[in-house]
Amino acid sequence: MEFSLIREASQRLNGLVVRTPITESERLNGEVGARLIFKCENVQRTGAFKYRGATNAVQSLDRVQAAKGVATHSSGNHGAALARAARERGIHAHIVVPETALPAKVDAIKAYGGEIHFCEPTQVARETGLARVVADTGAEAVPPYDDERVIAGQGTAALELLEQAAGLDAIIAPVGGGGLISGTSIVAKNAPNAIKVYGAEPEGADDTYRSLVAGEIVKDFLPDTIADGLRARVGNVTFPLIQSGVDAVLPVSDEEIVSAMQLLWQRLRMICEPSCATVLAAIRRYPANFSGLKVGVILSGGNTDLDSLPWHSRNT
Amino acid sequence: MEFSLIREASQRLNGLVVRTPITESERLNGEVGARLIFKCENVQRTGAFKYRGATNAVQSLDRVQAAKGVATHSSGNHGAALARAARERGIHAHIVVPETALPAKVDAIKAYGGEIHFCEPTQVARETGLARVVADTGAEAVPPYDDERVIAGQGTAALELLEQAAGLDAIIAPVGGGGLISGTSIVAKNAPNAIKVYGAEPEGADDTYRSLVAGEIVKDFLPDTIADGLRARVGNVTFPLIQSGVDAVLPVSDEEIVSAMQLLWQRLRMICEPSCATVLAAIRRYPANFSGLKVGVILSGGNTDLDSLPWHSRNT
Repeated sequence: MEFSLIREASQRLNGLVVRTPITESERLNGEVGARLIFKCENVQRTGAFKYRGATNAVQSLDRVQAAKGVATHSSGNHGAALARAARERGIHAHIVVPETALPAKVDAIKAYGGEIHFCEPTQVARETGLARVVADTGAEAVPPYDDERVIAGQGTAALELLEQAAGLDAIIAPVGGGGLISGTSIVAKNAPNAIKVYGAEPEGADDTYRSLVAGEIVKDFLPDTIADGLRARVGNVTFPLIQSGVDAVLPVSDEEIVSAMQLLWQRLRMICEPSCATVLAAIRRYPANFSGLKVGVILSGGNTDLDSLPWHSRNT
Repeated sequence: MEFSLIREASQRLNGLVVRTPITESERLNGEVGARLIFKCENVQRTGAFKYRGATNAVQSLDRVQAAKGVATHSSGNHGAALARAARERGIHAHIVVPETALPAKVDAIKAYGGEIHFCEPTQVARETGLARVVADTGAEAVPPYDDERVIAGQGTAALELLEQAAGLDAIIAPVGGGGLISGTSIVAKNAPNAIKVYGAEPEGADDTYRSLVAGEIVKDFLPDTIADGLRARVGNVTFPLIQSGVDAVLPVSDEEIVSAMQLLWQRLRMICEPSCATVLAAIRRYPANFSGLKVGVILSGGNTDLDSLPWHSRNT
């Protein structure tokens, strides 16, 4: 996939997405023995980097296609992002949502103007539901990650980060379906200086790690992790990009994720969801990869249930 | 107090304090019927605007005085801020801390290199302890708010906000001892356009509101509020500045503060402490003052106990 697609996405998104701030904590830097520059996509519109890819896809449509709207299936951040991106262009968004989705997520999609289509909570029902909506309406399906328009949009976060923080030695992002890490790796490999690229992945959804070892996408995959944003399987478009562009995918346990999440909240005063905390968990677990380096860290999102924080259930 | 002191502080602090980002939420704007531009001092160094005033005071000292160090008494953000500001200049900070202070606060002061002097948890013991440290060491006492160097430093947050967001109709900040609101009002009154200035104060520590009504500082004052950063009494320096520069001080209940705090966390994905949430509580309670306006909102700090969130204890 060409770097120029990400440059074009960056121009397309200018003024439509938040140029999110970077932040750092000297205290945390001392604790981990590296200089960590955090890119705060948790304060992106809709609370996650997903808004970049959704906006790039929506803004890339020609007028005839756009008039028919867009559609996706989602129980999480991508659905809200696509609804909000569609409203920005003044077009309709159909979001197929499993009946078991959190009410807060459904409310967010509605608040952003998306039309909800409930379905059974199975992968087959989600895909069937989406196919029916597309057949009925002619809407354009915008997948959550396995799509070059989406990957290019996600890559713009790293592009901004490199403008905001010069001289990074390494960059790390979470790995779910692989859209964010793929876009990130393309940006890093086109930087003027050499930048190592790491992915952080929950042990309970380590399909990408195992697929890299196997040399092909593993099929046996039953995700079981607190990181609800990273339960998707790596895609057919993203996997080869990860194979060629990512130096290592680093697995972390749910316990390490919760501990890192708590530390991010304390040190950065930023709300990060579990998926988002995988990156700090990996930096703490694999110090040999990061010690003494200047590391760009992409905080992917901040949508989490504030009424049940995971360190409460651990401690009580 | 002259506006020029704040301009000078701004130059002095350049590169020493974080130029904190602004953020907004379209969803929240819709919910309150105003455009709210949040200035995120919760991600300032040490997690609060207090670092600005402390740094301005420390950097203002001549070399002979600086060599003797600085001192204050504090159970909260000012102590950590002064410790960190002193370390930046390479001088010693003595912090007199009541024995009942939260361990997390004490740990923060130590982490920033401050020397802890424990005392009984009374106002008299705090002041006696500080006087003794000053007498023993020759350190310069840096009060938390009733000091022009400190007020000037706090005012630099509003100065930055006006550079980051043009055309504000109003600006609002929390009121404790009055350092932040005083500095903010001086900046607003020197802006090219007319800007209303509002303070938000807990009903359980509404000494400033009552003092404004009485025309003099009220003496009967026993603070009782969840907003631990706003329990101080308005000062002799700050009170006349508030009388002349603040359009209204708006009291809010603890229940309104907790509700606003939860909403800030949800919509901004930012951790705000209870004191910090008073501003949104006031905007929601007094809509006639803000409806349809572009409002600068200073988020004062993000240091709170993540293990006991107030909406948990309310709900269970």
